[in-house]
Amino acid sequence: MSAKKKSSGEFELIERLVKGLRMTRRTILGPGDDCAILAASKRPQLFTIDSMIEEVHFRLEWMPPEKLGAKSLAVNLSDIAAMGGTPTACVINLAIREGLEARFFDRLYAGIRDVAKRYHTDVVGGNITRADRLAITIALLGEASRGVMRRDLARAGDEIFVTGTLGDSAAGLAILSGKLAAHGTTRRFLVERHLNPTPRIEAGLALAKLRPLPAAIDISDGLLQDLGHILKRSGVGAEIEVTAIPLSSAYRAAMGDELAFALGGGEDYELLFCARPRLSEQALTKALGVPVRRIGRIIKGRETVLRGIQGASMPKLRGWDQLRARP
Amino acid sequence: MSAKKKSSGEFELIERLVKGLRMTRRTILGPGDDCAILAASKRPQLFTIDSMIEEVHFRLEWMPPEKLGAKSLAVNLSDIAAMGGTPTACVINLAIREGLEARFFDRLYAGIRDVAKRYHTDVVGGNITRADRLAITIALLGEASRGVMRRDLARAGDEIFVTGTLGDSAAGLAILSGKLAAHGTTRRFLVERHLNPTPRIEAGLALAKLRPLPAAIDISDGLLQDLGHILKRSGVGAEIEVTAIPLSSAYRAAMGDELAFALGGGEDYELLFCARPRLSEQALTKALGVPVRRIGRIIKGRETVLRGIQGASMPKLRGWDQLRARP
Repeated sequence: MSAKKKSSGEFELIERLVKGLRMTRRTILGPGDDCAILAASKRPQLFTIDSMIEEVHFRLEWMPPEKLGAKSLAVNLSDIAAMGGTPTACVINLAIREGLEARFFDRLYAGIRDVAKRYHTDVVGGNITRADRLAITIALLGEASRGVMRRDLARAGDEIFVTGTLGDSAAGLAILSGKLAAHGTTRRFLVERHLNPTPRIEAGLALAKLRPLPAAIDISDGLLQDLGHILKRSGVGAEIEVTAIPLSSAYRAAMGDELAFALGGGEDYELLFCARPRLSEQALTKALGVPVRRIGRIIKGRETVLRGIQGASMPKLRGWDQLRARP
Repeated sequence: MSAKKKSSGEFELIERLVKGLRMTRRTILGPGDDCAILAASKRPQLFTIDSMIEEVHFRLEWMPPEKLGAKSLAVNLSDIAAMGGTPTACVINLAIREGLEARFFDRLYAGIRDVAKRYHTDVVGGNITRADRLAITIALLGEASRGVMRRDLARAGDEIFVTGTLGDSAAGLAILSGKLAAHGTTRRFLVERHLNPTPRIEAGLALAKLRPLPAAIDISDGLLQDLGHILKRSGVGAEIEVTAIPLSSAYRAAMGDELAFALGGGEDYELLFCARPRLSEQALTKALGVPVRRIGRIIKGRETVLRGIQGASMPKLRGWDQLRARP
């Protein structure tokens, strides 16, 4: 047990890690003081926090440190994407444990820096603390667009769309955990989708230009769970055409007709959004720069109706008790 | 091992905890969406993050959950205080473990809410994740005053001041850890100073009105360590009158003449600042609303000179190798 007082080793590590960081002009003062100083924001700001913990969310043998760092920031960026914002600056709390060398943290930060640079996000500060498990907690600020996509904007009659394909990440995690067998390109694709999610920042920005503003959320807890958040906040129900849910060929190869991961897996980090019914999948795909699929519509009431699903599959779904199926 | 996907129990806990939160008008949207939405800031912003981890920084048997919550936010507020800013909004990452009931988290959040209210800080969002140890990580935003006190503003000839008394918190931790004996009011005072630090927000705001702006830092890693940060960033040295360091009567009762905790203990969360030599302790004490003591001055060069200390005490100091004593 000790005070929060840092050791000289911790100070050395902090100095080492911040060396490679470059700031944009919006950062008045980066790491090295009690706080970072950011220029005043012209628009409303978005603020979020997320954490990755060793042996809870990842194992080090699953991926190089660069990918772990990249994913730690990407999962936060996904929350900014879901509201149609532009990420601006983040601070990082690193809980470190015995047995990890400075070179490990160099590589972890290299991964964070790469993603930060790609999305024009400044890493403006952080903190290092001892722990028994590695944990990376990132708080991220963003700037809102002229409109912010919220979960409470869904209206009856809206069509429900998703970007990309669903369930890949959960299948990738099952493969890494030894619970699902897959080989070759199938395995590589699914594992990569778990380890290396793409935050849909550009797609979110394009969506936030639509009027009326879509309701949106990023799918981090599984399609049905996250759709449920939109429905609850908006006071509406939904009909989902299960056969329309976009699946990758790798998902089909590994999972066959089993939809549990596509419906209820986690960590897709795709966007789910609800828009007025005049937009084609083709037009949205072009505007968003990522494949978009229509999977259902918003209805009055409180029910979630799943169409086109085999009743036999349902007991495998988590959260199923909150739903009613009408095959 | 599992995805970052949340369980229904985690969602229930989040809903339970955010219920008691009240927002000021600067928060456009609080907890419940992918991100919080904050009104645009008129001034530059301050941004910081800090973490408290069970069995590293605290033990639950040391304090009621309310105090743990309060301290988790207070240590962040102290960083805003050190730069002379006003705290505005925070997000909280809670790593939870087995064996802690909902009532525990209600009380933890009650402590956070109380401090947040006292310092007009909105708790605008958060995240809950499983872990093997309880950890509370808070990222805090603040608004800068017309001037921001930085570590790099110290100039030769400045006088060095500190608020409050030093070493109490480290003595309190030693008592809690069974390494220091103390009883009655002495014990209570020192333990309370460790468990319940007061962020010097008002003092920081008063200091930030001085011109030229003082250099400042909050003393979280011990006086010599934190003074060292100012010296390094400002490219100067310091002379410290060790006999002038403010000690509480409880500290003297428990520690006698031993200055190790006052010089090198951690978690004082007092302010150290360097100002032009025209301000009396009395005037500063009145302006800052907390006792202020002059403990030395900034000099040219790179040395830290300690005056009035027994050489025999020095080996107990951490970080001593970086300093030179001249008794």
